[in-house]
Amino acid sequence: MNRLYETENVSLAARAAVLSEALPYIRKFSGKTVVVKYGGNAMQSEDIKRAVISDIVLLSLVGVRAVVVHGGGPEISGVLSRMGKESRFVGGLRYTDGETMDVVQMVLAGKVGKDLCSLITEAGGKAVGLCGLDGAMITAVRRKEGEDCGLVGEIVRVDRELLDVALDAGYIPVVSTVAQGDDGVTAYNVNADTAAAEIAVSLGAEKLILLTDIRGLCRDPKDEETLIHSAELSEIPGLVKNGVVTGGMIPKVDCCVRAIRKGVGRVHILDGRIPHSILIEMLTNTGVGTMITP
Amino acid sequence: MNRLYETENVSLAARAAVLSEALPYIRKFSGKTVVVKYGGNAMQSEDIKRAVISDIVLLSLVGVRAVVVHGGGPEISGVLSRMGKESRFVGGLRYTDGETMDVVQMVLAGKVGKDLCSLITEAGGKAVGLCGLDGAMITAVRRKEGEDCGLVGEIVRVDRELLDVALDAGYIPVVSTVAQGDDGVTAYNVNADTAAAEIAVSLGAEKLILLTDIRGLCRDPKDEETLIHSAELSEIPGLVKNGVVTGGMIPKVDCCVRAIRKGVGRVHILDGRIPHSILIEMLTNTGVGTMITP
Amino acid sequence: MNRLYETENVSLAARAAVLSEALPYIRKFSGKTVVVKYGGNAMQSEDIKRAVISDIVLLSLVGVRAVVVHGGGPEISGVLSRMGKESRFVGGLRYTDGETMDVVQMVLAGKVGKDLCSLITEAGGKAVGLCGLDGAMITAVRRKEGEDCGLVGEIVRVDRELLDVALDAGYIPVVSTVAQGDDGVTAYNVNADTAAAEIAVSLGAEKLILLTDIRGLCRDPKDEETLIHSAELSEIPGLVKNGVVTGGMIPKVDCCVRAIRKGVGRVHILDGRIPHSILIEMLTNTGVGTMITP
Amino acid sequence: MNRLYETENVSLAARAAVLSEALPYIRKFSGKTVVVKYGGNAMQSEDIKRAVISDIVLLSLVGVRAVVVHGGGPEISGVLSRMGKESRFVGGLRYTDGETMDVVQMVLAGKVGKDLCSLITEAGGKAVGLCGLDGAMITAVRRKEGEDCGLVGEIVRVDRELLDVALDAGYIPVVSTVAQGDDGVTAYNVNADTAAAEIAVSLGAEKLILLTDIRGLCRDPKDEETLIHSAELSEIPGLVKNGVVTGGMIPKVDCCVRAIRKGVGRVHILDGRIPHSILIEMLTNTGVGTMITP
Amino acid sequence: MNRLYETENVSLAARAAVLSEALPYIRKFSGKTVVVKYGGNAMQSEDIKRAVISDIVLLSLVGVRAVVVHGGGPEISGVLSRMGKESRFVGGLRYTDGETMDVVQMVLAGKVGKDLCSLITEAGGKAVGLCGLDGAMITAVRRKEGEDCGLVGEIVRVDRELLDVALDAGYIPVVSTVAQGDDGVTAYNVNADTAAAEIAVSLGAEKLILLTDIRGLCRDPKDEETLIHSAELSEIPGLVKNGVVTGGMIPKVDCCVRAIRKGVGRVHILDGRIPHSILIEMLTNTGVGTMITP
Amino acid sequence: MNRLYETENVSLAARAAVLSEALPYIRKFSGKTVVVKYGGNAMQSEDIKRAVISDIVLLSLVGVRAVVVHGGGPEISGVLSRMGKESRFVGGLRYTDGETMDVVQMVLAGKVGKDLCSLITEAGGKAVGLCGLDGAMITAVRRKEGEDCGLVGEIVRVDRELLDVALDAGYIPVVSTVAQGDDGVTAYNVNADTAAAEIAVSLGAEKLILLTDIRGLCRDPKDEETLIHSAELSEIPGLVKNGVVTGGMIPKVDCCVRAIRKGVGRVHILDGRIPHSILIEMLTNTGVGTMITP
Repeated sequence: MNRLYETENVSLAARAAVLSEALPYIRKFSGKTVVVKYGGNAMQSEDIKRAVISDIVLLSLVGVRAVVVHGGGPEISGVLSRMGKESRFVGGLRYTDGETMDVVQMVLAGKVGKDLCSLITEAGGKAVGLCGLDGAMITAVRRKEGEDCGLVGEIVRVDRELLDVALDAGYIPVVSTVAQGDDGVTAYNVNADTAAAEIAVSLGAEKLILLTDIRGLCRDPKDEETLIHSAELSEIPGLVKNGVVTGGMIPKVDCCVRAIRKGVGRVHILDGRIPHSILIEMLTNTGVGTMITP
Repeated sequence: MNRLYETENVSLAARAAVLSEALPYIRKFSGKTVVVKYGGNAMQSEDIKRAVISDIVLLSLVGVRAVVVHGGGPEISGVLSRMGKESRFVGGLRYTDGETMDVVQMVLAGKVGKDLCSLITEAGGKAVGLCGLDGAMITAVRRKEGEDCGLVGEIVRVDRELLDVALDAGYIPVVSTVAQGDDGVTAYNVNADTAAAEIAVSLGAEKLILLTDIRGLCRDPKDEETLIHSAELSEIPGLVKNGVVTGGMIPKVDCCVRAIRKGVGRVHILDGRIPHSILIEMLTNTGVGTMITP
Repeated sequence: MNRLYETENVSLAARAAVLSEALPYIRKFSGKTVVVKYGGNAMQSEDIKRAVISDIVLLSLVGVRAVVVHGGGPEISGVLSRMGKESRFVGGLRYTDGETMDVVQMVLAGKVGKDLCSLITEAGGKAVGLCGLDGAMITAVRRKEGEDCGLVGEIVRVDRELLDVALDAGYIPVVSTVAQGDDGVTAYNVNADTAAAEIAVSLGAEKLILLTDIRGLCRDPKDEETLIHSAELSEIPGLVKNGVVTGGMIPKVDCCVRAIRKGVGRVHILDGRIPHSILIEMLTNTGVGTMITP
Repeated sequence: MNRLYETENVSLAARAAVLSEALPYIRKFSGKTVVVKYGGNAMQSEDIKRAVISDIVLLSLVGVRAVVVHGGGPEISGVLSRMGKESRFVGGLRYTDGETMDVVQMVLAGKVGKDLCSLITEAGGKAVGLCGLDGAMITAVRRKEGEDCGLVGEIVRVDRELLDVALDAGYIPVVSTVAQGDDGVTAYNVNADTAAAEIAVSLGAEKLILLTDIRGLCRDPKDEETLIHSAELSEIPGLVKNGVVTGGMIPKVDCCVRAIRKGVGRVHILDGRIPHSILIEMLTNTGVGTMITP
Repeated sequence: MNRLYETENVSLAARAAVLSEALPYIRKFSGKTVVVKYGGNAMQSEDIKRAVISDIVLLSLVGVRAVVVHGGGPEISGVLSRMGKESRFVGGLRYTDGETMDVVQMVLAGKVGKDLCSLITEAGGKAVGLCGLDGAMITAVRRKEGEDCGLVGEIVRVDRELLDVALDAGYIPVVSTVAQGDDGVTAYNVNADTAAAEIAVSLGAEKLILLTDIRGLCRDPKDEETLIHSAELSEIPGLVKNGVVTGGMIPKVDCCVRAIRKGVGRVHILDGRIPHSILIEMLTNTGVGTMITP
Repeated sequence: MNRLYETENVSLAARAAVLSEALPYIRKFSGKTVVVKYGGNAMQSEDIKRAVISDIVLLSLVGVRAVVVHGGGPEISGVLSRMGKESRFVGGLRYTDGETMDVVQMVLAGKVGKDLCSLITEAGGKAVGLCGLDGAMITAVRRKEGEDCGLVGEIVRVDRELLDVALDAGYIPVVSTVAQGDDGVTAYNVNADTAAAEIAVSLGAEKLILLTDIRGLCRDPKDEETLIHSAELSEIPGLVKNGVVTGGMIPKVDCCVRAIRKGVGRVHILDGRIPHSILIEMLTNTGVGTMITP
């Protein structure tokens, strides 16, 4: 297990307090489903990656049904560049021609996902690397809104069967965001935040956790001290209006809102750079990010 | 939940460390049986009593099959004295005539045990108060060695069936140390340490925890800093010879030795006066008492 | 097994007739729940006690889910008197101060109930001694109607879970009438007839059997030949009006009426002094007491 | 239910005694297998037939796994005679040519067996009429010893599967003694006592009951008062030598001996003419026939 | 296995085509119920009989829950004539006096049905010969319409329990068309087409297959080339009106119509004289008879 | 479903013969495990690929537990060449440096395997794309014998758990031959024939089918008419000695031999270029390739 801090220096009373606080949460979440969207900087540092994986494995040890949904933009760009092909983005989305789609599929489903499985094994867990082509788990159609981005898809259906098979057998599904076209042939590149949200919805997840590169939603985005620990769905429009949620956070927060509306219990926006932020958020009374509730 | 300390003052890193350390233990002990012998001073203070009960309930929440075996000497003496009957001890054991036996049975099985069930309910758990007469769970014969003590019994058989029924259904059995005579009629007063050990043996328990009024075994009994954290069975005779184990601790340690020999995984001698000593001993790397291993 | 009479003197034809008659009843009641309220004189004679226990064990052998609910007034008075404390009754109910409540709990849950378990074991059955504090099985509030009687409670809820756990595992629950206060702390003394009725209701029992010191309801209470074998619920008010039901029988019959109204199949008022009255009433065409039907 | 005698005239004490005695037997035999060979005079009187069927249905009601194996000599002879064909016997066995075999099969499997099923339905039970051709349940070869009797077979194998299917589903198998030849084509006529014994052996039956036209084995065959209630296997040779067992009883007793040797618990030779002899023998302390024990 | 043709002469491509076509049907029908009415000429030729039995056994091997309902007019007439009793028919139905009924029951349930079981065993399957008297499976009342035919019954109830018991255990029920009278005593002779239809209805069968002596329904009954492969329920009245369905086919088609109306999936009228017509109809795209659909 | 041939032209008799022959095989293989090594030319033609996939899906429809193990040399070479990296072979094995290994993993686990899953979905089946990194399914160490080939591994352990999870849930595992290093970090490139054999062994497979580019083993390799339909293990050394097995077939046949020795039931060497060769080999009496038996 990866631990950045030793418990020897923690007083008996503090240890007892942390444990007494955590056990009821463990019981509460045991058997429940938690979907973690994992990407961005939290995936680039080896130390942070190990801490994230450690948290997920630890939760699965105590019965949480954990699902990891990952991205992999930098890795895709790397392979494309080695092939002498430039990455091209349209409105923030990667333009995905057929050749690019092959690379997206190979890198995500063949490399990033399977390597995460390997890390989970090393940390004492069990994982299986899946994508939308496995058992037609994620079906998409070509994205219609906005400018044409090629084989970028919009999810139209998630079939939870294979996820349940894996979870019931104690495996952590590691899902790569490649979808099966509804023509049964074409593969599509889909957005990881959206995929995580749709998967959480289809599983009736207790929690959707988005690991990001920010502390959470802050009343003053420049001051982490103004972090909003918890917000109800009804407060979100006001936060957008007041400029608390801006830019790239808007589609992310939209994802959260849709997930909650479709039955996910809670969504957490966490700072992936804080080691063990998942454990702390889930198992202690005072969280470290922003929780959105119905 | 009873908590003597707030977690707010514990740093994120410390919390993460405590939790990361605890979760593998929780997984390890989930589904395993732990027998706690509860008596002495840890049963006289209301605060400590609540902390002990809280620990046991918390462990049961995360799947530990916890069994409580309790004594109740002071309560028995109290009722006897209210009846104008003096308590009489022979070689450390209560002389138990028929009238005394009735009081022992009433106080332990009717009052102390059932009140512990009530406290467990209050703490969020489920309990059932049993004694050796329930389903002939504990059978004893009249104690033969030493001076005659009346209806003091020696356990000859523990039938685990009823304990399993309760544990399988999620109940914490609270066992009063009254045994069924092998004539099917007489009831016997049995020693609580021995009863706990025999029950742990019959259940193939992972752990037997003796809550006592001392810190554990100390190389220099007057200096708690010399606490022996862990001792193998083979080291025990030396500890007795060297005077580390003396007086009333000798029969207790004998109990531990027999339990280990008959298959109990670990025995812990803990200081019942330290709040939450059970949680700390079971779920952190650095224990607070003495652990005896095979 | 306790038998007061040998079968040798019974003709083959008579034996065949009794058995042919009994087997369909045995099939009918196998797997069904029967709650027996056991108290009064039927509990004072050792012979009768053994015959009652024998009947209950025999029924449990052939699959009846039997529950015993017992009282113990004389035993409580005995212990109180040995403590130099006089029993005091208010309107037929024992005035129960805190000290008395402790004695009620100790005597019923610690002595009378557990001793019945011992007898059941001896007769070849399996039993477990429970009270309202076990798994918060019976919850009560302080009795509000009538004169103040101290800690005398009125049942507000019966939780059948623990009874089912015991019954499913083949144990006969022996229930002492001590209830958990709804504050989670106070214990209350509750009426045994009422407790038996409420338990029968919560279990959806096929039968509630009240063992009493009278033959049953008789049209002329002084003439047992006028015994009413069977009465419908609608006939009860007339029987009260006509003086068939009087005095202490009125609350008992009220209990029966409430039990039937809340779904219990049949209530039987039996003479506990007739040996094996339970077997005869349940397994032959011609009963020995009064059966009340919906 | 068929009852030849009313229980009204039986005293309460007698009823209690019969029931107290019977219930432990009922528990003991519940779930156990009892094979009844039914034939002879007990099958000719309608009253006796109803009493026998009633006993079997009653036992099945309380969980006994009852199997009926029947003969039907008189019925076979009747049909043959209506076809103008004379019955011919060789050494006590019916000479069975092909035409006769067709009649044996039709009468036993089509008429006598199915009619018994109908009676069992009427008595409140469930039955299914089987023979050795169903699921190749009984396999035979042509009888080799003694004079040639045509298609008379010797059983070489009983396959219990179909019997278990029926018993597990609560049906009473009614078995006609027609066997499948080991060539897969020919059908054989087999002896009913032997078939019952072989079936009892294959099922590991608790009891094999042979309903006969005699009271049982009597030391003086002319005096029923000398009935032998119970005999051990080792006593049988002596009984044959002393002329207690003679004539047609010798092959019957041989059957019993083989059944016991191959694991059947007890064999009972009962007088089929005594109404309800099965119930009395099985559920009371004092039997009415001869029991052979290992 | 009986095979009239070797596969050696079938090209690889043809074999692959037949198999590729068959496997989805096998999956579709596995676990589904198919009732086959078997009678007429298809029962008189030994070769055809073996081919029919082979088909049914093969289907049961791959998980089809097959039920056979058979007639046996010629066999009944044969036995009656050997008894010197003439068969008498009234409006196409056998006049069934008591003596005749005994013969009907004996021949169908004792001979024809059990012999089919024997053939099924020989072909590698498992079968059990049942009739309406087994477990009161088929209940009938005396036929009221038309001229009096004696003990000819009209089915009023089919109890599927025993059929399910047999099918669940992997046995093919072979049902003889003898019914239990609703008085619990009389047995009735019932029409086999009707019995098959009622059984199919009670089992919610996927298919009812009537093996007949004609090719199917033909637009020009004299020209098999005009075979109607498939007809919807709504087309049937037209077919009767146009003389496509005439004479003895009218009641048969009525049976089919009722079966479909009461929930049977498909009814097939097949030519029992074509070897393996059942396999070909069920497992290839181009059937050989007429299929009636809802 | 893909079908290269219509059944219309196949005579009824031929269809019946093929089906009668196939059904017992279907029953025999239902629930059994068949591992198909799929590679070479059979993977390059789209038509053949669809026929192979169709066969596997059809078998899985009738209950065969099918596992596909695939290679993908040409696809790997293609991506390497697009990266400007030349493929290099050492003694027939691809020299695999770290960069090449990344490509091997991406192409096999991310592209070839997942695309096969997509095809299986299209053909009506369910599949999941796995590799040795999923649940540490295949563990390897660096290949020691022969010349150094970089990250080419030798399998030391196959963990069947994840395969069983997928198969039990009705999924066809499609396995890419990438193994987890026993250091828990490095990934290795492993030979597909060997991987298929080891997987078949770990699953106790009924059959291992190697799809190749030759007709099977032929006594005269130049004459397909000399095809050896079946060979026992003991005949193999002779075949090598006599030059029947030569060159690249030697390691393949070695694989087969090891698989049989370790418990696989049968190994088939089939010509992947014959459409539906798997169905024909498995479900007809006359196979199309060479079967090796113990």
